[in-house]
Amino acid sequence: MSDVLQLTCDLISRMSVTPDDAGCQALIAERLQAAGFTCEHLRYGAVDNLWATHGTEGPTLVLLGHTDVVPPGPREAWSSDPFVPEVRDGVLYGRGAADMKGSVAAFVVAAEAFVAVHPEHPGRLALLLTSDEEGDAIDGVRRVARTFAEREERLDWCVTGEPSSTAVLGDLLRVGRRGSLTGSLVVRGIQGHVAYPDKARNPVHEAAPALAELVARQWDSGYETFPPTSLQISNIEAGTGASNVIPGELRVLFNLRYNPHWDAVRLEQECERMLRSHGLDFRVDWHRSGEPFHTPEGKLRSVAREVLAAHAGKAPEESTGGGTSDARFIAPLGAQCIEVGPVNASIHQVDEHVRLADLEALPGLYLTLIERLLLSDGAA
Amino acid sequence: MSDVLQLTCDLISRMSVTPDDAGCQALIAERLQAAGFTCEHLRYGAVDNLWATHGTEGPTLVLLGHTDVVPPGPREAWSSDPFVPEVRDGVLYGRGAADMKGSVAAFVVAAEAFVAVHPEHPGRLALLLTSDEEGDAIDGVRRVARTFAEREERLDWCVTGEPSSTAVLGDLLRVGRRGSLTGSLVVRGIQGHVAYPDKARNPVHEAAPALAELVARQWDSGYETFPPTSLQISNIEAGTGASNVIPGELRVLFNLRYNPHWDAVRLEQECERMLRSHGLDFRVDWHRSGEPFHTPEGKLRSVAREVLAAHAGKAPEESTGGGTSDARFIAPLGAQCIEVGPVNASIHQVDEHVRLADLEALPGLYLTLIERLLLSDGAA
Repeated sequence: MSDVLQLTCDLISRMSVTPDDAGCQALIAERLQAAGFTCEHLRYGAVDNLWATHGTEGPTLVLLGHTDVVPPGPREAWSSDPFVPEVRDGVLYGRGAADMKGSVAAFVVAAEAFVAVHPEHPGRLALLLTSDEEGDAIDGVRRVARTFAEREERLDWCVTGEPSSTAVLGDLLRVGRRGSLTGSLVVRGIQGHVAYPDKARNPVHEAAPALAELVARQWDSGYETFPPTSLQISNIEAGTGASNVIPGELRVLFNLRYNPHWDAVRLEQECERMLRSHGLDFRVDWHRSGEPFHTPEGKLRSVAREVLAAHAGKAPEESTGGGTSDARFIAPLGAQCIEVGPVNASIHQVDEHVRLADLEALPGLYLTLIERLLLSDGAA
Repeated sequence: MSDVLQLTCDLISRMSVTPDDAGCQALIAERLQAAGFTCEHLRYGAVDNLWATHGTEGPTLVLLGHTDVVPPGPREAWSSDPFVPEVRDGVLYGRGAADMKGSVAAFVVAAEAFVAVHPEHPGRLALLLTSDEEGDAIDGVRRVARTFAEREERLDWCVTGEPSSTAVLGDLLRVGRRGSLTGSLVVRGIQGHVAYPDKARNPVHEAAPALAELVARQWDSGYETFPPTSLQISNIEAGTGASNVIPGELRVLFNLRYNPHWDAVRLEQECERMLRSHGLDFRVDWHRSGEPFHTPEGKLRSVAREVLAAHAGKAPEESTGGGTSDARFIAPLGAQCIEVGPVNASIHQVDEHVRLADLEALPGLYLTLIERLLLSDGAA
């Protein structure tokens, strides 16, 4: 069994459902320390974070990952135990196989190989792992980034191992992510009997034209490779269940995914202005999940493009689509960020899996990236 | 203790929460039979209905009432036991005191007095009581009316004892009721992740402009003394609770209160046409709770107006507002219908009550109505 497969299996066997690291980082730290890395454990609340570095001078390349996984759901729904890794027909099954214990294992194997061959390499190679990427992400990389900002860590490049590929390994290079902003809206009315509408104020009626305007709004038509900013109402709720009572309150939960045309503050102002223009008695509580980030053309993108093209046989799509990742917290520190990982078709689902061929190829891909970035001249 | 107070108390003591009559009708039938009435018990399913008549020829006046009450809710919320009638400061407290055991007791006392003085009266005096007015009303007066239609009962006038007065007894004469129609709307979309809106179809977004149009619609501007037809959304619901999931389905419950400009069929067609015009993938299940009824100027209204004016000192407001009542089932049989009863301020609430002075006045009011209707010439 190859080293990367063995380590991936060892990690899958640890039931590290967010925020429980379940010993994954200790296992990795032990290996990296043996390879000469300096390991720092940053525990905040219930969350484990590991910061492992090799080298002290010059540009820093961070390999960013998480050891936590989403809950597997009912055992019966899986073909095999989600926490007992199993290979069937050239595919490794288990919770976290693709998101992202496979990538984390490949990081470790690549990092060990790099420092073994280049013990005196220029620059600094770092691994940053958290056990809270899938959850609230309060005490994970968000919190670590604050610590890094305080101590003025210099980070130049960040490669996240998130499962970014769509059909085959390397077909997509993620070079940015939209921001995410959630609004929790309460529209207040006055409860009453449907037979006496003039004694009540129906918040659903008052909000209906405002919501129609909000969802019809074209926020922009995209930004470079970013898709257009989009607002989606995910939840709406009013009423007591009875058909003869006018509800006193309407609750709406909506989420904006936005590109760098916008920032959270301006979106909040714009939504509230629109709601006010309809004369609503309302309140919005906002939750900012991360500003968008975007890595422009430069050394990191061009190196990654060449490495992926060499593996996949053609140049990757360079995309800014999809959800959020912890790169959103690293980008504001000044680092260029990309995401390169396995196929994401099965993540967060039952029978999550990664193709063995892809898993075996990952350490080589990451190693080439590390070499091309750290062994050439400067961090341009 | 007066006869009407004693009988009201006896009825309140019987815990006749819909559809349980709890012996109320047996008690009343016993008295009416002793007074010379013919009593017919019409039991349908779990519902008791009592049809008591005196006289066989000429126009029929029906006194319509119900012996069931709505649940009292928590005992602690009441100042005294809801099923133990209690007089405090000239007010009788208990569940059903106003809605409508007081009126039913007054009907009985008035009917007994009438036949005692006029044993050979012209016309027919009838009482119709049900134990399912507050509930589904399937096996109550709705069902009785079907039986009456089959056997071609002739009904000319109907006086319902519903608590119609607003501030003082006799200040309002109800001469019609709006119809009630409930629509249960499901708008289908395609569930998905908020980060990928083009792979989903958000039913809240698709429905928003349709709902805005539906609630903005002016259906009419009223009909004689009827208020305008009104649509109210009572419940709306979509979403899994998660902020990052586009819901697959939107459910909306709405109710129309409509005047005789409309009927249920045309309203249903109009709503569905409007929903279709927005291209929605939807389904509506309709529940028709009763067509509107309206009693035009005529003998019943003019007699009732004079009787109430004589009691209250000024002519009553003649209204078609408010909810529905069982008169909606009697009106289609060809009867003119009005509603005359005590003050409705406390109905369906804790500490439901009726003023003793009003309760004591009711038998006299009803007796005068009976005399003016049955002892004069014809049913014009």
